[in-house]
Amino acid sequence: MTPKKRILSGMRPTGRLHLGNLHGALKKWIQLQEQYDCYFFVADWHALTTDYATPGAIRKNTWDMVLDWLAAGLNPERCTVFIQSDVKEHAELYLLLAMITPLPWLERNPTYKEQQQQLTAKDLSTYGFLGYPVLQAADIIIYRAHGVPVGKDQLPHVELTREIARRFNHLYEKEIFPVPDALLTEVPVLPGTDGRKMSKSYDNCIYITEPEDTVRKKILQMMTDPARARRTDPGDPAKCPVFDYHKLYSTAEEMDRVSEGCRTAGIGCVDCKKILLEHIMAHLGPIRQRREAMEKEMDTVRQMVLDGTARAREEARKTMDLVRSAVGLGVENGI
Amino acid sequence: MTPKKRILSGMRPTGRLHLGNLHGALKKWIQLQEQYDCYFFVADWHALTTDYATPGAIRKNTWDMVLDWLAAGLNPERCTVFIQSDVKEHAELYLLLAMITPLPWLERNPTYKEQQQQLTAKDLSTYGFLGYPVLQAADIIIYRAHGVPVGKDQLPHVELTREIARRFNHLYEKEIFPVPDALLTEVPVLPGTDGRKMSKSYDNCIYITEPEDTVRKKILQMMTDPARARRTDPGDPAKCPVFDYHKLYSTAEEMDRVSEGCRTAGIGCVDCKKILLEHIMAHLGPIRQRREAMEKEMDTVRQMVLDGTARAREEARKTMDLVRSAVGLGVENGI
Repeated sequence: MTPKKRILSGMRPTGRLHLGNLHGALKKWIQLQEQYDCYFFVADWHALTTDYATPGAIRKNTWDMVLDWLAAGLNPERCTVFIQSDVKEHAELYLLLAMITPLPWLERNPTYKEQQQQLTAKDLSTYGFLGYPVLQAADIIIYRAHGVPVGKDQLPHVELTREIARRFNHLYEKEIFPVPDALLTEVPVLPGTDGRKMSKSYDNCIYITEPEDTVRKKILQMMTDPARARRTDPGDPAKCPVFDYHKLYSTAEEMDRVSEGCRTAGIGCVDCKKILLEHIMAHLGPIRQRREAMEKEMDTVRQMVLDGTARAREEARKTMDLVRSAVGLGVENGI
Repeated sequence: MTPKKRILSGMRPTGRLHLGNLHGALKKWIQLQEQYDCYFFVADWHALTTDYATPGAIRKNTWDMVLDWLAAGLNPERCTVFIQSDVKEHAELYLLLAMITPLPWLERNPTYKEQQQQLTAKDLSTYGFLGYPVLQAADIIIYRAHGVPVGKDQLPHVELTREIARRFNHLYEKEIFPVPDALLTEVPVLPGTDGRKMSKSYDNCIYITEPEDTVRKKILQMMTDPARARRTDPGDPAKCPVFDYHKLYSTAEEMDRVSEGCRTAGIGCVDCKKILLEHIMAHLGPIRQRREAMEKEMDTVRQMVLDGTARAREEARKTMDLVRSAVGLGVENGI
């Protein structure tokens, strides 16, 4: 039996997850854990690249996110869940990779200038922000991962990781790091309640473990096709964010029904939303209940994460032994 | 009794030391160990900033340098001698400091562009090379050092370290890091055998533990005042590199004698050099003998360095506990 291929992925600790996170990444993780040797981590050091001046929330956000991961179905018996900053070896590899990473590779990173332009409230002209793809490369290759699940916008980062891995192997004449592949994941369209991209900064999110009554309220107040101002106006499902939700949650039959009803003004938006609501509630109910149960067992959750971190560290150390002996520094390594 | 103030300094592992290294830094270290709580380290990670493509020599150079340190009088019972890459905490602090260090601080670093222009044979447009002052800051402040002995050319680096320490303290609202002072050391002029700055790359060095016969040969072939072509020509000690050596090694009386003899062509260059040679031999003989003795006791030397490294690590860990709790990341720290 060949060993399972190894997959690595992380998320910045942003706190409770919304439906965009769930369908954009977490669902995929939950599938991957069944087929691969998966390492999933809280990228808390990465959070510092943008939030170094206000790190206070990172701690709470870490646990909020981990609880949501587990509630949604990530199973620490089937995958390794850990905290990046608790595996110091990432920092050591980051330092070594820094030495071999050409500056132009980082300067041409498309998200670098983009984020600097978007997050104007923060001073992102820092050395750490410029180098976060180096840290990301360290995160991935320290586990000698074969694949990284990513959305299309993350492809340039995986490409950079691949280049850094190749350059290290070439310079030190050993195939220490497998060059990881991007596992391109299809991300379904899931707009926020105002029709824009779902994002905390827009305050348009539905959280995966929020109470039923606020989910109901948000869905009922959710934007629909703006052309359908009155109940008697016909609408266009293609222009209605609620219909994007139906695509994810409702049956084909129901989709036909609301689609037809919308176009002919046969059903109102509230009726349409009620059909959706039933499905969303059925979907989120068990997740919310699991989260509530786990919140009462924080010691167990904590121990799961500590165990995962210990497992991750062991793997990271094995790699660093190879790395140190390839580069040839230090005395304690018997050099 | 107030505890001794702490001093930190490091050298890149360049191998056997020459007289320039001895008089430029090592002599100062040997004095400092008597008054301060001194931490002296082999900056092997720093060596990678320029030699990442050819790290093979770093290992041998580390031991060659440490043996010379000890032979010249550094006493591991009076100071802490350690290897940078064996204290991984430096890398963790480097990562955290990277997040808060503005890029312009690094880009305006005068030695950055300077070295890039000088070392054209190496590709120094790397992320690590740009960030070596960040690593240097981590090296210093992780021991909460009060002072750093430096020559004038290193002052901008200490200033950068001070700014980074201040910025960290300010951002995280704790006085974690004392802002270290530069201890400006007077470096005597000590040219190489060809009159230029003594440097390995010029092949004009006298090594502190090289055999008597090659020292003699080098001194006897050493450049003198070029105007004194013949024995009968008068010379000018101010233009003779040998006289710079006399200033370091000879008595005031001898200096007067050779100075007068040179100006009047009363003594020849060989006579002048023989006076110097006697002093240099007397000075270097014991150093060479100590080195030879230690080479036979490598297990002891190795253990000294391991002990120093363990001591350094303990101090670095204490600081990192404070740092982690100020920044507030991680789970293992009880967060």
